[in-house]
Amino acid sequence: MAMVDISDKPEIFREATVTGTIKLKPETIQLIKGGNIAKGDPLHTAKIAGILAAKKTSTLIPLCHPLPLTNVKIETKILDKSTVQVTATVKTKAQTGVEMDALTATTVSLLTIWDMVKQYEKDYEGQYPSTKIENVRVVRKVKESNRGKAFENERKHKETQG
Amino acid sequence: MAMVDISDKPEIFREATVTGTIKLKPETIQLIKGGNIAKGDPLHTAKIAGILAAKKTSTLIPLCHPLPLTNVKIETKILDKSTVQVTATVKTKAQTGVEMDALTATTVSLLTIWDMVKQYEKDYEGQYPSTKIENVRVVRKVKESNRGKAFENERKHKETQG
Amino acid sequence: MAMVDISDKPEIFREATVTGTIKLKPETIQLIKGGNIAKGDPLHTAKIAGILAAKKTSTLIPLCHPLPLTNVKIETKILDKSTVQVTATVKTKAQTGVEMDALTATTVSLLTIWDMVKQYEKDYEGQYPSTKIENVRVVRKVKESNRGKAFENERKHKETQG
Amino acid sequence: MAMVDISDKPEIFREATVTGTIKLKPETIQLIKGGNIAKGDPLHTAKIAGILAAKKTSTLIPLCHPLPLTNVKIETKILDKSTVQVTATVKTKAQTGVEMDALTATTVSLLTIWDMVKQYEKDYEGQYPSTKIENVRVVRKVKESNRGKAFENERKHKETQG
Amino acid sequence: MAMVDISDKPEIFREATVTGTIKLKPETIQLIKGGNIAKGDPLHTAKIAGILAAKKTSTLIPLCHPLPLTNVKIETKILDKSTVQVTATVKTKAQTGVEMDALTATTVSLLTIWDMVKQYEKDYEGQYPSTKIENVRVVRKVKESNRGKAFENERKHKETQG
Amino acid sequence: MAMVDISDKPEIFREATVTGTIKLKPETIQLIKGGNIAKGDPLHTAKIAGILAAKKTSTLIPLCHPLPLTNVKIETKILDKSTVQVTATVKTKAQTGVEMDALTATTVSLLTIWDMVKQYEKDYEGQYPSTKIENVRVVRKVKESNRGKAFENERKHKETQG
Repeated sequence: MAMVDISDKPEIFREATVTGTIKLKPETIQLIKGGNIAKGDPLHTAKIAGILAAKKTSTLIPLCHPLPLTNVKIETKILDKSTVQVTATVKTKAQTGVEMDALTATTVSLLTIWDMVKQYEKDYEGQYPSTKIENVRVVRKVKESNRGKAFENERKHKETQG
Repeated sequence: MAMVDISDKPEIFREATVTGTIKLKPETIQLIKGGNIAKGDPLHTAKIAGILAAKKTSTLIPLCHPLPLTNVKIETKILDKSTVQVTATVKTKAQTGVEMDALTATTVSLLTIWDMVKQYEKDYEGQYPSTKIENVRVVRKVKESNRGKAFENERKHKETQG
Repeated sequence: MAMVDISDKPEIFREATVTGTIKLKPETIQLIKGGNIAKGDPLHTAKIAGILAAKKTSTLIPLCHPLPLTNVKIETKILDKSTVQVTATVKTKAQTGVEMDALTATTVSLLTIWDMVKQYEKDYEGQYPSTKIENVRVVRKVKESNRGKAFENERKHKETQG
Repeated sequence: MAMVDISDKPEIFREATVTGTIKLKPETIQLIKGGNIAKGDPLHTAKIAGILAAKKTSTLIPLCHPLPLTNVKIETKILDKSTVQVTATVKTKAQTGVEMDALTATTVSLLTIWDMVKQYEKDYEGQYPSTKIENVRVVRKVKESNRGKAFENERKHKETQG
Repeated sequence: MAMVDISDKPEIFREATVTGTIKLKPETIQLIKGGNIAKGDPLHTAKIAGILAAKKTSTLIPLCHPLPLTNVKIETKILDKSTVQVTATVKTKAQTGVEMDALTATTVSLLTIWDMVKQYEKDYEGQYPSTKIENVRVVRKVKESNRGKAFENERKHKETQG
Repeated sequence: MAMVDISDKPEIFREATVTGTIKLKPETIQLIKGGNIAKGDPLHTAKIAGILAAKKTSTLIPLCHPLPLTNVKIETKILDKSTVQVTATVKTKAQTGVEMDALTATTVSLLTIWDMVKQYEKDYEGQYPSTKIENVRVVRKVKESNRGKAFENERKHKETQG
């Protein structure tokens, strides 16, 4: 068993953007909007947790290479009355891509939001009837040789996704 | 800002079960079934990564407590021609629940599956047109005082989910 | 060489509070107060970093025991025109004290503040003429058998410190 | 796949002792004895690395449980003109044994000795013709219910091993 | 005390191969061969643990440099009726060698095998009368300037080792 | 929220030196000088802990970049009858500076000294009336383009500090 051998690949600019969402109760979203979550700001906390997680990717995903990340950026957005979206963008100059790093950042951000609002999402039996992480996907990958194409691809993607 | 103070809560048996799915190409699922993934068995690798991740939960999610996990179990199942499901069950005897640990185990398992089959999921431009992590949710939580209820609740859940 | 053998000590309630300060330029403090730090809110970020660090104490300080922390709380306060204070309180029920955990939380919080405001503290040569971490000390330790005394001690301490 | 479920086992005193050796050149052993290793004292450094490693066991060995270690002790001994022995003893009060923790401590200590004396062990081609880690084994395990027996067993072992 | 200063060394291709063995009972080896180990496949699990460990080398061995590993490969082989061999090969392009990384990968793989078959190796008193890790050594190191020589050296080594 | 984007910055030589002090009782300093600290040599232990910590900087400080450190050096000095000073120097060839890494190394070294001498610093109530970490600051930063200036700056600094 082996990590893919990238010894002979050139170090080029790489970028990956990932999004994912968490479904919460409308009441919880209102509390977030109002700054009323008891444990603290869930979106800011989620961003920090996501950035830290990106840097741990190769210790979490067995066959990932350790990469010298040059940028990790996490954004959150309340999409509608019951959905928060996380978007993570990761950059490096390396011999392999950073989509796993952006995926790790996104999912740990989403998990952190969950943790921050746990008490509002549980029902009287301690169960989570509606909380859900969904739609975690790679929006786009870029590498030095195809930056133009990737941007075009992204535009098309946005058009078809509405 | 603070982790919730659990100093005065009793140490009781806790259990949480989480599931989530990853959407893959039918061709990739066939390769998994046939044992033909070049990087190695993605399901076995995912289970190990998930178990290790459960033990790192409190270092990934800022306000999670470090808990003495007494059991972590990960199962994988090919649900249909384009879906793999991961189920993680975590147990402890502690002052707070383990749903975040089971959620972390599940998502890291799903990310590991993604990483193991990356090469088959990418299109000719290096993009992932269809790969997606979905439906990550807490199936049930149990604590000592409500084991009976939780099991009943779980049965109902199964009936309504089909 | 050995970690102190605590096998035969009773598990009792333990608490430790640590404070420390960072000296910053008055202009930087103004930027913090106005919410104008380009990298994001340094005080919130510092609190999260400190809480996470408390949970890593035994992997950073060679002879520290791994302890099941039941509470970690970090507070920040702008003391005067050039000083930010961090206070960390850590609790556990264990066989040894948690002052090292509170010290680790405090110093990593202070380092994080430094990192967040780096660009405003550097002079034109890239040096830090005035930034400084100071006065990191254990304000009080409590254990189950001496809670009363410790509180009294704390009162006296406050009186003599003004 | 799962960590063994220890949820219903009692928390009892556990102890494990592990030894292992590293074969070095006689010249290297002389340098160690004389305090002349350029990188610093290899035996002291090895002890610290071993103690830290014991606390990371459950993050290194996939199915190991995280345990609240109450004591880790590392000793080193120059056995003969080309052999250094490391002995690690680990204690806990937990639901499962600590032999993996003592094994991890011992091997990381031995690896650290190797790293500290690398330059003296390499030949002119940069190869290690004689350096070797050997004979890593569990000398004895103790649990509360069989302390007497274990000690007796240990005595017998010593007699037969000379 | 210091990590060796490699600031002025050139970044060149580096490779190291390490082997080591674990002595198990013949019955345990039979169980491995038959796929009958209760905790799961020990050899596959060992490979994953070894790959992950290689990436943690500089956090385990105090004076090791963090290196951008471009390849980690672990192979296992049942050598005879009571011996399993692990071989780890690690590659990088860096200013210093990767033998410590390959040694760490090998020993953590061997420890993982031990952990996976613990129950079959223990006697009725919970002791390990015969389990042993042995013969952990660097088979060869390569760097860009001496690839030819190293390969030749390896051939000779194989001839003399039979 | 984001780590600063350093993707387009050149990789150049970087160096940072940080100092800090810990205030101890004169009796404790005497014990250190005499090699009489029960837990082992605090200064050697502190150096090792500091070097290891430097390599964990980007996992402790949320917005720090992971950097390929080429040198970490820690020195300790008993400054006067109640003060120990730690000095950490860190080097890299990277797109951003290493002052946070040197600050992390210094503070973890100082915390380790505290931990090693805890028992001598506590009063009869378990409090620390005089122990204190102080004066943690960046003595100098160097980058390739301004090595000359930085050295000059350092000389001036020494003159003014006495």
